[in-house]
Parts: sequence; structure tokens; C-alpha cells
Amino acid sequence: MSKILIRGMVLPMTGPNDFYPEGEVALEGERILSVGEKGSAPAGFIPERILDYPQDIFLPGLINTHTHAAMTLLRSYADDLPLMPWLETKVWPFENKMTDDDIYWGTSLALCEMIRSGTTTMLDMYMSMDKVAKAVLTAGTRAVLARGMIGSAPHSGKALAENLELIRNFHKQGESRITVMFGPHAPYTCSGEFLQQVKAEADRYGVGIHIHIAETKDEIEIIRQKYGVTSVKWLDDLGLFGGHVVGAHCVHLTAEDIEIMAQKNVRVAHNPESNMKLNSGTAPVPLLQTKGVIVGLGTDGASSNNNLELFGEMRSASLLQKLQVESTALPAYKVLEMATVGGARVLDLEDVGKLVPGFKADLISINLDQPHFYPRFSLPGHLVYSANAADVRTVIVNGKIVMEERNLLTLDEKKICYEAESRAKRIVGEL
Amino acid sequence: MSKILIRGMVLPMTGPNDFYPEGEVALEGERILSVGEKGSAPAGFIPERILDYPQDIFLPGLINTHTHAAMTLLRSYADDLPLMPWLETKVWPFENKMTDDDIYWGTSLALCEMIRSGTTTMLDMYMSMDKVAKAVLTAGTRAVLARGMIGSAPHSGKALAENLELIRNFHKQGESRITVMFGPHAPYTCSGEFLQQVKAEADRYGVGIHIHIAETKDEIEIIRQKYGVTSVKWLDDLGLFGGHVVGAHCVHLTAEDIEIMAQKNVRVAHNPESNMKLNSGTAPVPLLQTKGVIVGLGTDGASSNNNLELFGEMRSASLLQKLQVESTALPAYKVLEMATVGGARVLDLEDVGKLVPGFKADLISINLDQPHFYPRFSLPGHLVYSANAADVRTVIVNGKIVMEERNLLTLDEKKICYEAESRAKRIVGEL
Repeated sequence: MSKILIRGMVLPMTGPNDFYPEGEVALEGERILSVGEKGSAPAGFIPERILDYPQDIFLPGLINTHTHAAMTLLRSYADDLPLMPWLETKVWPFENKMTDDDIYWGTSLALCEMIRSGTTTMLDMYMSMDKVAKAVLTAGTRAVLARGMIGSAPHSGKALAENLELIRNFHKQGESRITVMFGPHAPYTCSGEFLQQVKAEADRYGVGIHIHIAETKDEIEIIRQKYGVTSVKWLDDLGLFGGHVVGAHCVHLTAEDIEIMAQKNVRVAHNPESNMKLNSGTAPVPLLQTKGVIVGLGTDGASSNNNLELFGEMRSASLLQKLQVESTALPAYKVLEMATVGGARVLDLEDVGKLVPGFKADLISINLDQPHFYPRFSLPGHLVYSANAADVRTVIVNGKIVMEERNLLTLDEKKICYEAESRAKRIVGEL
Repeated sequence: MSKILIRGMVLPMTGPNDFYPEGEVALEGERILSVGEKGSAPAGFIPERILDYPQDIFLPGLINTHTHAAMTLLRSYADDLPLMPWLETKVWPFENKMTDDDIYWGTSLALCEMIRSGTTTMLDMYMSMDKVAKAVLTAGTRAVLARGMIGSAPHSGKALAENLELIRNFHKQGESRITVMFGPHAPYTCSGEFLQQVKAEADRYGVGIHIHIAETKDEIEIIRQKYGVTSVKWLDDLGLFGGHVVGAHCVHLTAEDIEIMAQKNVRVAHNPESNMKLNSGTAPVPLLQTKGVIVGLGTDGASSNNNLELFGEMRSASLLQKLQVESTALPAYKVLEMATVGGARVLDLEDVGKLVPGFKADLISINLDQPHFYPRFSLPGHLVYSANAADVRTVIVNGKIVMEERNLLTLDEKKICYEAESRAKRIVGEL
């Protein structure tokens, strides 16, 4: 088993007072062996590699709880548009031309960007998910994969079959780096029967469900007209909740919705930048948290963001709630929790998101020896309000180094950028 | 005179259709000699240096129209607090302990960060402005400097004398890189008599006035109780407007306020991240622009942001208006204009902010050969929605290279970070 010794500042995300200014983390195989002050690694631990960065801060890898990775191919293809023309005249026609291989390369591009910005785990909902799984296996990252399913005739049967196939082929594959969920798209794109069928299959396979919920006012209006209740209430009445359910967005919620979500342990993937860019609204994050709902952070796809980095997303999450609620809302450490240990809880990953012995060795380092990180009063403050993607120096997933000194070790970045560029342009040429 | 030839993509910011995919810019001395396609430099132009970056995009240096640079020393010293405790228990006691030299080093730290993130010009309002001027002269950047003045007894006379001294010593100094304005702090911290005195001096010296206006609801309430009108109306009634006036923030405005500002050509420094972080509110930027008010972007001080980079600020400006108004608000190119040519108009800098022959040679390059800039559909979209500080490769101000391949050529970054750290910690020790 590989053995790596890490030295630097260590922020284990086990509590706001836990910090090792001169810390040490020992990694053995896929897992963390020890975390503590310098010299705390067990006697007899002989590392093959020592990463000694006294000016870096090590923390758990960031967790992106909602994205459509291959939509990198649409980055800046359709900015500054209203939602429906954006979808109908730009996104959907483009997506209709995407091949399996396009999705492989688009996902690979997303993984380059994610690794470069310290994201070690993503929850991805898209199509051709076997290709997404292969890209993840190559990249060496962790992922939860859900086949995005429009749950109405004529395509719902095929989509569900593909999601089942995804479970059979990839659930717990790649040293368990991959887990699979069902991905029914949204209340307004899936029938009640389909959602109940999905729920039955999810229970049968013991996997979770990822679904967009209450993203826009229009959705709320459509569901109210169709069923006379809110999106959350309708899904609850259908019996969808109770197991592992991750709702993306959850912007427009009533007090009763939030009570239901808390009771049924529905977890939330909050996407502040996408919600801002598409004029969707502001999710009631502090209220959700007060009521006990677990909230993680997501970037959504690159077509509505347009980047996939969580440092900016943390900053936006905090600033947005400070603007809408009060200046004390979502303080820095709480936002860091959302992007690490909170994200792991959203994804039901029991041994990810904190630096503690026995947990999976997913961690990143940020080079603090730069002007925008001086003076050093609050390091969580620096990470949330000042850090950017390029400040990440090291990325380790499952005990393997996937980025060192900003060089990607598992992916051929030049080739991926070339493929992404030429495929995106080919698709637009076909429209 | 030094001669530099630049080759790469060129976005001159002279109009949304103006772009040279294989462009060329010739610099002679302090100014731009030519801008166009590759090969367009005048015959006989023999450059001393050629910067050939076909994968970089060159654009005008970014302009920060409102900051308190030396407040870098307070970075992350007081996050996540309500406004008044933030000011009264943290910011003001800290500032009371700052020496002239502390301000020199804090400003130098800000200039490191600004250059690293592509900002070539700042409008700075603070104290010990002779030290700020010296830091700017060393850094080689462009700056508009205003002595921040609390305009009431007993300190207003001394502050005004210092602002006058600043004009005499530094206005148009450093190859005209520095200009000076008056800096009365705000309507609620200056008496009417003082503001009229400032206006008379500004007219006498032919310089402008920089003042916080309508930043918070509290300010509006204070002014209404004291004078029965809005902040803008009160300042207008006093006769403060008509010359070159830059209002910082301008969040809480009535329709009549906006009419006055448009008529009197009051220019706005918009600070979206600070306004979000301090729960100040959302400035009506699209409405101001529709009415003809010129709006630039600012970061405010590092205590309420906490970074001084304009790439994140551009993104926040656009996302905030998209959330609050509509998804088509502040499209990418318009935001880039605010950060370049718009900022120059805010600061009354006639030959800065665009890449055109005869203008000052202030320009930056961004390395687009990175995963988060693929595919290349809209480059303005990439610059606003995907770019970060560290993507800036080259910074040139007034024809001189101040950053090359991310190495600062004019500032001793290590020394500056060391001084900032030790001085900030000394100050906290004195409290």
C-alpha cells in the first residue's frame, strides 16, 4: 500500500477550533492513517513520498453536489439569455447533437477544471453516463453518477433502463470511487407514475435519488396548476422521500416544504451562481440549516455558471445570504463545511469530507504564501473570501496524487482541451 | 523611448465587434502606437521587446474605481459581523493604531494583489496619502488619490489641509500616473459647510471629488431626519455636483436621485461584493446606465470584500443584477466595459481604458490556454464568468512591464508580505 506523509497547515474540518498550524497527515493506501501535529504519524510509518509545504493549508477535497459535467462543451455558448430561449434555442438543440464520445470529452474537460480547483468529488446528472464513469475512472476522482431522466413517454423506459445498467456496471466500481443514484429530472418533467417506479427501483437497489426541485417560480406554478400543491409536497405525497434523496436548487420553498424536507431528511444541493445567472432566485439556506436540512454546494453545469470551481461558489453562497438575510449569515467556516463535510453528508458518503483517521484520503492543499492571503487573521475567511481555483497546489483522491504543483497526473489536458474545442465547434456547425 | 511589440488575441474595448484573433499592438514610450491585425505595426517600428503570446488575450488594464488599499492589513480580521459592531469594535480601533508606514506597506500589499489580478488603475480614498502616493510611484501603476476626510470638527481642517498638500505634491506626478481628488467621506460624516468648502477648493484647483453616497439605508434615514431629503438631493442642494464627482456605492436611490445624477454627470463606483457582504443592498446599475449615468466597478477595501480583484467583481456585478432584475441584465461585454473604458470615464482619465493609438499603454494579457476557457465561444463571456486573478500573465502600465509571467518586476513581494503580516499583528497586539 502506498504511504504518503503530508506536512503543512492542516484544517481537518472536524470543528471550528480544530487546526494544526504545523500539522501532519499520514496516508496509507486509500485512507487517512493519522492527523495531528508534526511528528504525530505512527512510529514505524515509512512514507514513500513526503509532501512538505509549510506555507500550504491542507483540507478535505471539495465536493460538488450538483453538476452536468459534459455541459462544459456549452461554456459561453449561450450567456445572458432568458431561461426559456436559453433552453429551447440553445441548450436543447446543442445537446441533441452530442454523441457519447462528446460527453466523454466534455466530462474530461470538466474533470480537468475540477481537479485544478480542488474538487475531488462530484454528483453528476447527465446522459451517456457509462462514458462519464469511464472519464471519472481515468481521472481518479470520486463521483456519484445519476442518469438524468425525462420521465414521460416515449423515452422514459430507455432512460430508466440505462440508469439500471449504470448501477449494474459502475456502482461501487473504481475502488468504490463511483456510486450511482437514480436521476429523474424534475417534478415538471416526470410523471407521478414514473417517479414511483424510480422510487421502487431505488429501494430495490439500495441507492439514492437525485432530482431538481423548486428551481424556478415557473416550476412551482406548473406543479400547482397540475396538482394543486407545491413541488415538495407533491413529491412527498408520491412517496419519493424517506430514503437518500438529493434535491438540486430548492429555491422556492414554503415553511411546510422545509418541514417536510427536514422530517424526511431530503438533502439540498445549493447552486448560488446558477440561481443568480438564470434569475431563479435565492434558496433559503440559513433557514434550511436552522431546521436541520443538510445543504451542500454545487456549481450546476458550465452553461449556467460558467465555471466549475467551488471557491467562487463558496464566496457567492456567503455573499448572497449576507445580502438577502443579514451580514452574519453563512460565516466562512460554515461555508467551508458545506463544501466539504456537508457535501459528503448530502451524497451519503460516510467516510469522506473530513480529515480523520480511517476516512478516505481525499485532500487538497492551497498555497497561502501569496499577497491575497496576507495578513493571516482568519484562514477560513481567506479560503472563502479570497481564494481562487489557481491557488490549489496539490490534489489527492483516494490516496493517489492527481495534481502536483498544478500538473495534472492522470489526464492529458492538452488533448482534452483540443477535443473539447473541436467537438463543440463541430456540434454548432451541425445546427 | 521604449518600444514593445505585442502579439496575441486583442480585445481593444472599442466596441463589441472589435476583436483581433491574431492581433498586434505596438507601444512606444508611455503610449499605444498602433492596434490591429498581425503585421499592422508601422513600417520601421523596431521593438526592443516582443511579447508573443498567441494563446493570450490582451485587453486594457482593469480599473478599480473605489478602494481603501491599505485596508489589506485588516483582511479577514473582522468577517461575518453586522455593520456597526464591525466598524466600532474592529475597523476603527484598528485604524487608529495604523502608522504612516503601516499604510505604506498595506498599500503596497494591495498593489501586489491588484497587479497580479490585472488592475492597473485604482481610485484610493484613505489617510497618509503621501505614503500611498509613494507606494504607487514605486509600483508603477496608475492611481487617483483622495484624502478621506471626516468633515466635522476638530479634525476636518487638518484633513483638508492634507488633501490640499496632496494636490500640491502629487497631482500629475509620476509621468502623470497620479491624479488627486478631494475625498470628503460621506453625507453623514461631513457638514454642509465643509462640503461647500471642499467644492470651492475643488473648483479652484480643477480637481474632482470622491465621496460615499447612499451606501446604506441607515445613511438615507440619518440624512432624511437631519435635512428632510435624500443624500443625493442634499448634496445637489449644497452645490456639490456639476464638476467631476465620483459617488461610491449609490445603492439606495430614488428616481429623482437618478435624474439628478444623470443631469449633473455624477459618476458611480459600484461595489457589488462589498454591498453584499455588508448587507448594504443592490445598486440599480442597469437603471443608472439606461439613464446615462456612467458606472465603473470597485472592490472597496479588503475588510469588506476581502480580495481586491476585479475578475470576481465583474462576475458578481453581473450575477447580482441577473438575480435582481433579469437574466439578460449586465451582459458580459457591458461588464467588461464597466471595468475598463467605463472606469476610465468615471475617473475622468481621457486617454486610458481602451486600446487605441495615442492612449496610454495600460494593458494586460490573460492566458486562455486553460481548461476553464474551453471551448472558445464567447471570449468576453470567458473573461467575466470564468476568469480569475491568476489567469493574468502580463501587466503593462504606462508602457512599462510591471508583471511578466506572473513575476512582479517593480515590487518586492516577499518583503511586502512580511511587513504586512508583522505590522497587522503588531497593531492587534496594541489593542
